[in-house]
Amino acid sequence: MITLASDFGTPYPAAMKGVILRESDARLVDVSHDLSRGRIGESAFWLRETLPTFPPATHLAVVDPGVGTDRGVLVGRANGHTFVGPDNGLLVPAARRIAADDDGVDWFHADPGDPESSTFHGRDVFAPLAATVHDAVAAVGPETLDDHDRLSPADPIDLRLPEATIEAGDASGEVLAVDDFGNVVTNVPGEFIEDREAVTVNGDRVPVVSTFASVEPEAPLVTVGSHGYVECDVNGGRGAEWFGLAVGDAVRIDPTG
Amino acid sequence: MITLASDFGTPYPAAMKGVILRESDARLVDVSHDLSRGRIGESAFWLRETLPTFPPATHLAVVDPGVGTDRGVLVGRANGHTFVGPDNGLLVPAARRIAADDDGVDWFHADPGDPESSTFHGRDVFAPLAATVHDAVAAVGPETLDDHDRLSPADPIDLRLPEATIEAGDASGEVLAVDDFGNVVTNVPGEFIEDREAVTVNGDRVPVVSTFASVEPEAPLVTVGSHGYVECDVNGGRGAEWFGLAVGDAVRIDPTG
Amino acid sequence: MITLASDFGTPYPAAMKGVILRESDARLVDVSHDLSRGRIGESAFWLRETLPTFPPATHLAVVDPGVGTDRGVLVGRANGHTFVGPDNGLLVPAARRIAADDDGVDWFHADPGDPESSTFHGRDVFAPLAATVHDAVAAVGPETLDDHDRLSPADPIDLRLPEATIEAGDASGEVLAVDDFGNVVTNVPGEFIEDREAVTVNGDRVPVVSTFASVEPEAPLVTVGSHGYVECDVNGGRGAEWFGLAVGDAVRIDPTG
Repeated sequence: MITLASDFGTPYPAAMKGVILRESDARLVDVSHDLSRGRIGESAFWLRETLPTFPPATHLAVVDPGVGTDRGVLVGRANGHTFVGPDNGLLVPAARRIAADDDGVDWFHADPGDPESSTFHGRDVFAPLAATVHDAVAAVGPETLDDHDRLSPADPIDLRLPEATIEAGDASGEVLAVDDFGNVVTNVPGEFIEDREAVTVNGDRVPVVSTFASVEPEAPLVTVGSHGYVECDVNGGRGAEWFGLAVGDAVRIDPTG
Repeated sequence: MITLASDFGTPYPAAMKGVILRESDARLVDVSHDLSRGRIGESAFWLRETLPTFPPATHLAVVDPGVGTDRGVLVGRANGHTFVGPDNGLLVPAARRIAADDDGVDWFHADPGDPESSTFHGRDVFAPLAATVHDAVAAVGPETLDDHDRLSPADPIDLRLPEATIEAGDASGEVLAVDDFGNVVTNVPGEFIEDREAVTVNGDRVPVVSTFASVEPEAPLVTVGSHGYVECDVNGGRGAEWFGLAVGDAVRIDPTG
Repeated sequence: MITLASDFGTPYPAAMKGVILRESDARLVDVSHDLSRGRIGESAFWLRETLPTFPPATHLAVVDPGVGTDRGVLVGRANGHTFVGPDNGLLVPAARRIAADDDGVDWFHADPGDPESSTFHGRDVFAPLAATVHDAVAAVGPETLDDHDRLSPADPIDLRLPEATIEAGDASGEVLAVDDFGNVVTNVPGEFIEDREAVTVNGDRVPVVSTFASVEPEAPLVTVGSHGYVECDVNGGRGAEWFGLAVGDAVRIDPTG
């Protein structure tokens, strides 16, 4: 199985699929091709939340503002999963989550070969590499990457998603992502609001609930979202607009309401 | 085969797929993940029009504004097809259409288990349930649901799409859906405009044609759409804008033109 | 394998898939369902750039403003690939590219049968035809199309994408497509700007680079894109807006900077 993720929109992902299918019979599953364009951090968050739901697979992901430069071509291995993408941090949080251990990921740089284009390495570098890696692992096992002639051990560019801190009893964090519903995903751990009836978010007092339907339509709420973090949402509306929050914005939560 | 439909946009559907694929080898086919957000009626219309085109399959559908509340978890069975989703009416019209008979659908409530989140039952309840139901039916047959230990017979929340009426020779209906082309799908049966050259829709006289290309570019038309209903369209443009119609709006058609 | 492409958005492609899967076990791969709505030329460009990346497959493509009129139903064959779609030029450039030879494509008209609708031939004509053609070719080989009882040899509607010309040392071309990144794909061959440091595009002097990251964020650039043509782009932004260019617009490039 090869999962595919990118910020390519359409129809470029089809070219990646065509290239893969010329080489491999792997099952293909789209993760998303609407990852935040060129935003490595937010895309890395979504990959970290999504890829661990899959059984062992080869995960191809391309959000690559440095395409065509000398940024490396990365292959990773953890817990039976394989990762293929640009060496810009994109896949690091997902691989760490799947390894359940910072040291549990083996990283390699891959020879990029001689790509036909300097602007579409998804098609010319990463897709054929994912097919090659997938088929090698499927035929021999993950250990085959250790002596693959296109791979050499590497220290990848690191990327750690920011963590919230507690200051004077308040949580001080930031927005990791805004989803398609407009829900604002912060990096404040859900436990911080447990057993609270209301909290203050950047000055606004908002009820803490466990379901959207607990408040009136169009009313704001704070909840522990499906990622385990505090989310700032609106029932049937867009939290990002009500709270005036975007990715990277600071969020201060006073738990005493 | 498991079909997937939701109003999740991206990338949440990938988490449902990952969860399913951890349990099942089922073929996955996306129906749509851009169903009208939180609008059960319009989404139910699209499922009713789309799911019957498939061969027998497990149909997973999640448009679920009541996620996390005590709304039930529904499983249905009709004509070799299986349905999995929230008990809010969403899948009822599709199941009835596939059964070709109001009494031809068997409904069950499923034990929701102990979902990890209260806001993403697509990932935590419905996807694993769809995998379980699919694999049980594939291994044993649809009758296995009768004594499945997670299921018990249920009367689901009903949902019937509104039907047009005839008043003083005019059809009085409403807009069931607006498609991506901007075509306005009403609930007035197509036969109502058969053999007419023009009709009056909410006061506007419009030609009745069988193809878009029968009128000038950007000109309005009325036709019998692919759903069998009267549609209010524009050749190469958006009927919803020309006619000023949205889902749920009243439509009165005078067939005498 | 059947690839699917259309301008249908969602959820109409699912009805095509359902219809195919009732008849065939073919693997389905989406190319795009967001081809430029009703624009045959731009859609033909994307198919020509994408379909050749695939291994031999049946390629179903529907951008069909003439649906329901007497436009023909086309089947093509080239180099082990099969093409199914409306006879409006849509698939001609892709088939020629795959044939690598103008004379290398065999074209047939197909009996459209008696479609249920006059507005959704994707579901009622093209999808079942693609399933039939795919399964016949898979079972017997491409030669089976020669005496298929629904097919007869045809001269299709031709479509040739415009080619740039050189006038007084300048390239005079036009915009073939704008991609989801806002990159402007012209029809000026990439060789025209090779070894240049800067060129003038419609009066604006712009650097010629091989990677987006070669210029500052939000700065314009000209590069040889992944299609082999000159592209007018912006690093991290939308070339279409910076250059003020849309599909079909004239582009004049002075290579002397």
